Amino acid sequence: MPGNSRGKLFVLTTWGESHGEALGAVIDGCPPGLELGIKDIQEELDRRSPGKGAGGTSRVEEDQVEILSGVFEGKTTGTPISLIIRNKDQKSADYDYLADVYRPGHGDFTYDRKYGIRDHRGGGRASGRETAARVAGGAVAKKLLLGEGIIIRAFTIELGGIGIVGFDEAALEENRLCCPDREAAKKMEEALASARAEGDTLGGVVEINVSGCPSGLGEPVFDRIDADLAGSLMGIGTVKAVEIGAGLMAARMKGSESNDSMGPEGFRTNNAGGVIAGITTGADIVARVACKPIPSIARPQDTVDRRGEPVTITVKGRHDVCVIPRIIPVCEAMTALVLADHLLMQRAIKRR
Amino acid sequence: MPGNSRGKLFVLTTWGESHGEALGAVIDGCPPGLELGIKDIQEELDRRSPGKGAGGTSRVEEDQVEILSGVFEGKTTGTPISLIIRNKDQKSADYDYLADVYRPGHGDFTYDRKYGIRDHRGGGRASGRETAARVAGGAVAKKLLLGEGIIIRAFTIELGGIGIVGFDEAALEENRLCCPDREAAKKMEEALASARAEGDTLGGVVEINVSGCPSGLGEPVFDRIDADLAGSLMGIGTVKAVEIGAGLMAARMKGSESNDSMGPEGFRTNNAGGVIAGITTGADIVARVACKPIPSIARPQDTVDRRGEPVTITVKGRHDVCVIPRIIPVCEAMTALVLADHLLMQRAIKRR
Amino acid sequence: MPGNSRGKLFVLTTWGESHGEALGAVIDGCPPGLELGIKDIQEELDRRSPGKGAGGTSRVEEDQVEILSGVFEGKTTGTPISLIIRNKDQKSADYDYLADVYRPGHGDFTYDRKYGIRDHRGGGRASGRETAARVAGGAVAKKLLLGEGIIIRAFTIELGGIGIVGFDEAALEENRLCCPDREAAKKMEEALASARAEGDTLGGVVEINVSGCPSGLGEPVFDRIDADLAGSLMGIGTVKAVEIGAGLMAARMKGSESNDSMGPEGFRTNNAGGVIAGITTGADIVARVACKPIPSIARPQDTVDRRGEPVTITVKGRHDVCVIPRIIPVCEAMTALVLADHLLMQRAIKRR
Amino acid sequence: MPGNSRGKLFVLTTWGESHGEALGAVIDGCPPGLELGIKDIQEELDRRSPGKGAGGTSRVEEDQVEILSGVFEGKTTGTPISLIIRNKDQKSADYDYLADVYRPGHGDFTYDRKYGIRDHRGGGRASGRETAARVAGGAVAKKLLLGEGIIIRAFTIELGGIGIVGFDEAALEENRLCCPDREAAKKMEEALASARAEGDTLGGVVEINVSGCPSGLGEPVFDRIDADLAGSLMGIGTVKAVEIGAGLMAARMKGSESNDSMGPEGFRTNNAGGVIAGITTGADIVARVACKPIPSIARPQDTVDRRGEPVTITVKGRHDVCVIPRIIPVCEAMTALVLADHLLMQRAIKRR
Repeated sequence: MPGNSRGKLFVLTTWGESHGEALGAVIDGCPPGLELGIKDIQEELDRRSPGKGAGGTSRVEEDQVEILSGVFEGKTTGTPISLIIRNKDQKSADYDYLADVYRPGHGDFTYDRKYGIRDHRGGGRASGRETAARVAGGAVAKKLLLGEGIIIRAFTIELGGIGIVGFDEAALEENRLCCPDREAAKKMEEALASARAEGDTLGGVVEINVSGCPSGLGEPVFDRIDADLAGSLMGIGTVKAVEIGAGLMAARMKGSESNDSMGPEGFRTNNAGGVIAGITTGADIVARVACKPIPSIARPQDTVDRRGEPVTITVKGRHDVCVIPRIIPVCEAMTALVLADHLLMQRAIKRR
Repeated sequence: MPGNSRGKLFVLTTWGESHGEALGAVIDGCPPGLELGIKDIQEELDRRSPGKGAGGTSRVEEDQVEILSGVFEGKTTGTPISLIIRNKDQKSADYDYLADVYRPGHGDFTYDRKYGIRDHRGGGRASGRETAARVAGGAVAKKLLLGEGIIIRAFTIELGGIGIVGFDEAALEENRLCCPDREAAKKMEEALASARAEGDTLGGVVEINVSGCPSGLGEPVFDRIDADLAGSLMGIGTVKAVEIGAGLMAARMKGSESNDSMGPEGFRTNNAGGVIAGITTGADIVARVACKPIPSIARPQDTVDRRGEPVTITVKGRHDVCVIPRIIPVCEAMTALVLADHLLMQRAIKRR
Repeated sequence: MPGNSRGKLFVLTTWGESHGEALGAVIDGCPPGLELGIKDIQEELDRRSPGKGAGGTSRVEEDQVEILSGVFEGKTTGTPISLIIRNKDQKSADYDYLADVYRPGHGDFTYDRKYGIRDHRGGGRASGRETAARVAGGAVAKKLLLGEGIIIRAFTIELGGIGIVGFDEAALEENRLCCPDREAAKKMEEALASARAEGDTLGGVVEINVSGCPSGLGEPVFDRIDADLAGSLMGIGTVKAVEIGAGLMAARMKGSESNDSMGPEGFRTNNAGGVIAGITTGADIVARVACKPIPSIARPQDTVDRRGEPVTITVKGRHDVCVIPRIIPVCEAMTALVLADHLLMQRAIKRR
Repeated sequence: MPGNSRGKLFVLTTWGESHGEALGAVIDGCPPGLELGIKDIQEELDRRSPGKGAGGTSRVEEDQVEILSGVFEGKTTGTPISLIIRNKDQKSADYDYLADVYRPGHGDFTYDRKYGIRDHRGGGRASGRETAARVAGGAVAKKLLLGEGIIIRAFTIELGGIGIVGFDEAALEENRLCCPDREAAKKMEEALASARAEGDTLGGVVEINVSGCPSGLGEPVFDRIDADLAGSLMGIGTVKAVEIGAGLMAARMKGSESNDSMGPEGFRTNNAGGVIAGITTGADIVARVACKPIPSIARPQDTVDRRGEPVTITVKGRHDVCVIPRIIPVCEAMTALVLADHLLMQRAIKRR
């Protein structure tokens, strides 16, 4: 299969370009009888919408989703669920100056090399806007998982090099960065303001936590749950590193430190991040992703055009300073899609 | 598909348990006309064999591969290539004490939860021994890639917390850890000796480098080359983190630092690690994996048995102190499998 | 994968219910650079539209397709092509009497058994209307194949038990049944008129011919081209038998009769129907499908309701008397999808 | 995926050439806990072995299967089941005269066109011998289905143009043709003897019956159970036509005749052959396949060599006169593989 579908049983297919007619998602394999309404999906899309603060863009992005099939009288029917989000405010002409030039850090060059043709308007299919369709599809997965008691939450643990020190769950709702440390959140906002003033952008780290996930999910030896999570999270455009559990730190532990010992009460630590031998343990699944800075900076940059001639480019328009916090619902969506798929798989194969 | 196959066009299926009759690999989709002999595969298997030094196991593992199909008169025919490695020296009785108990850090608990039955002999399918079949399959992929000028090399950049400082390519062949820094290699060996003396184990970090890879490989938006690499590398049992290019460090850069500017001569830096927007740029692909310590330590550990009763266990037998360097050919194999698959995919879809 | 996608490289996903908001098709894997416009797709859809004669329905079905993504400046970009056909004239209330009863020969009973819930309006996803999305997707495949000189044509060779005697290509355009025998076409129309008068329906046989197909397509041993064609054609709701080449007659020949001998000029006969050992020979591909009568008849029928109670039902509304000729573009579409997929596959694997 | 695997959840991969080292099957996705022994598989293989009568070959084919993985203490573990059948009696030199010539009706020409290289020894991968691996894999599927009360039986209903008149179940065990009509069986044997005397071969028709299959299996709109059955049966080398239920006859019925009316007792007829709208009804599944004559005839035939030069060839060796009855277990195996796959799929998606 080409690359615009993911999953084996709970399958999401997405389509659409940043400045085309619309974006869309088709979910095939959602079990019948799940209560599902526009609201379930719209709420997730709204979380992805641009904020008002220093990290957000000033573009207007009103993503209104429609359900075109697969739901009847408020419940899924087992047939494909088609979701569509019409694009608005597509000022394609704004992008004409990009038709023949490759923006550093963007997919302009690689799409051209791969396809020999590209829709340069706003990045086309390579735009971060494409993730709206993932969030829409992920919302259906989240609803399915919620019915099984599985809850997925992502939050910011580092931004512009500023890491969290404490963790206060209540803080997550209080700041737009979804940061569990109020002090750190303030410093992050200052860093964002400062970067914006410099015409620059920042990166950060997001942690994903899954609670309530039963043990036994994951398909060794290749479709291990950690493998699938890593692949799905690295498949978000901005992500350059993925860790599970202790992650990189595990490489610096001794076996006597990293092994999670068990007692009758369960696992005593969770260095494994909820996954051993590629299968869920029943403990919380913990993953972290490192997001690079947004490549669209308001400074002149050296690059080349399609003929290979050197060009200096300054990316126009108003862009986000950081993908955080907009990437958070995307991380949750990708995680939900992975788990929904494995949940159904385990139903198929488990011992009777 | 269940989880024992990987790839869409160049597909590897593996089978076999640590202490069963044999391990095997079936490669479907290898193009016809490729020169392939036992030697191509045996050499890779030998690289995975236990060393003689402090990091190695003292078990005898003579992996002799046979080619059972798909090759005729020294060339692949386009039909499935079946490889088999007979298991020897399976002292299954040695493992009887594990039939009802879960070793910390091993797949014993999760396999039981998933399947409700397990082959406890030496970890069964969850054993690291399973990777021999991956290395065998990966050897075919490497041969295919070599014909296209694509070369994959992995090496040790950290072990037991000791990182490399310099990089001397010549050193790679000189020390059994495949470490490009002679001084660091010595310290790593000392750390291994020390850990062995303590009955403990160590982790480390491996870097994978791919040179000669053409631009244009990768299938957005889900089967991006970085997504596929991350999933495949995280699918190695010991791996807990995967980075591409600047990896975690990218999250701490500014956009003006992380963007790889271009000139007529090509990319001037490679923070992207050879992948932008999920598609190869033509620059070297760079990935790093963090490996946890081997969970089999020679010390008593708290755990539970199948009924949930607390047990103290000491894992018997002689085990490796670190997966490095044996994991190195496995990392190369997984990388080769990903690239071979995407190489064929690009042939199918590219503009004529 | 669930069942609403087909293909491995040229992949069609369809969605939508008969009386929902819309029907749609997503094509993933179409190579970039193919000239494609609304007209290419609309023409095929129009061929599927209800005719004016005795075999046609009197419902108004104006299928207007929109291209929502994947095409830029008149050419495909290699990204997913999303097609949508809005439903009009959905008088769902007309179907309320069917909510709790199973129409004989329809999917009402089996959908209920499978999903435990169903969208009963006009058959929902089980409606023949779903094939509009296949025709739309197939139109893209046909365009791709046409560029390679591959031409697919289907025509009526039997209807209501009346078979053709002669074959005059010119006749195909002259009668609405796409029947190559003018005399037979007349008798078929009489049979249709007679069946309509009786409130009954008729079945028929369609032959599909593919010219210009290169040798070498097909993936033994399971994805043989004949296997894939048979599966795809049998997957059309109305089809109950599929033949390739001599088909059933081959079972009554001797080996000396059925073998197609070869000379320097090529194959001297084509009992194989263009496929030997699952791979195209380069001769015309010939397949035939037997279509059952439409189950919606204007006569009272015995059936049961959801509780299993006996009910007599008379299906309301005006329905077609025969799926012919409307099924013809559907047969062509399914054939085109199979061939486009195998064409790309052969590009991937062929010897260099 | 290339073509040597089939299924989505219960997946069979086969490998091996007629005159290579061995044939093999890997089954991935078989649920854990199924009792499985060599005997289950060997019995099916023995049914495929050459008979002693007029239809059988005089080659010695002792197919002894080994289980190499996936079974522990007599039960499946949920990991891949690897089966191997060593080839014996491979007199490859016997086939040297075929290295440069294309036998009519065989895959020699098409394999060469596809792969540009071929293992000509005994047909290589295109040999009917490949079906031994399917039968081995199918035996596992049959065992799984048997535990659910699903029974698959195939039998001969026509051979050399001689059809059955009556149906006596007891007769199936009495004649080696698995023909339920004793009189017809006698005439069929006479026809076989006569064809053999003429150096010719015969075709026939096999019917497959599945009882005990629950309603609700099948994945619209493309992976309908009838579509999957048709594809899988047409994927047997000898098959040129597949019918479900009334098959071709359905095209000659009126809707009032072909619709299977329902009463409280269930379906009153079974023209549908157990499948409506691509989903099982719970009635017996009925399929028929038409098998062409074996192409290896003991008569001179016109053909060409690799350079396209005309050649007259007489195929050497002793071959079967008809694929019946050896094809019967192959038909059952393919049917079992389809049903096992759909059974698991329905477990995954069904409404809770």
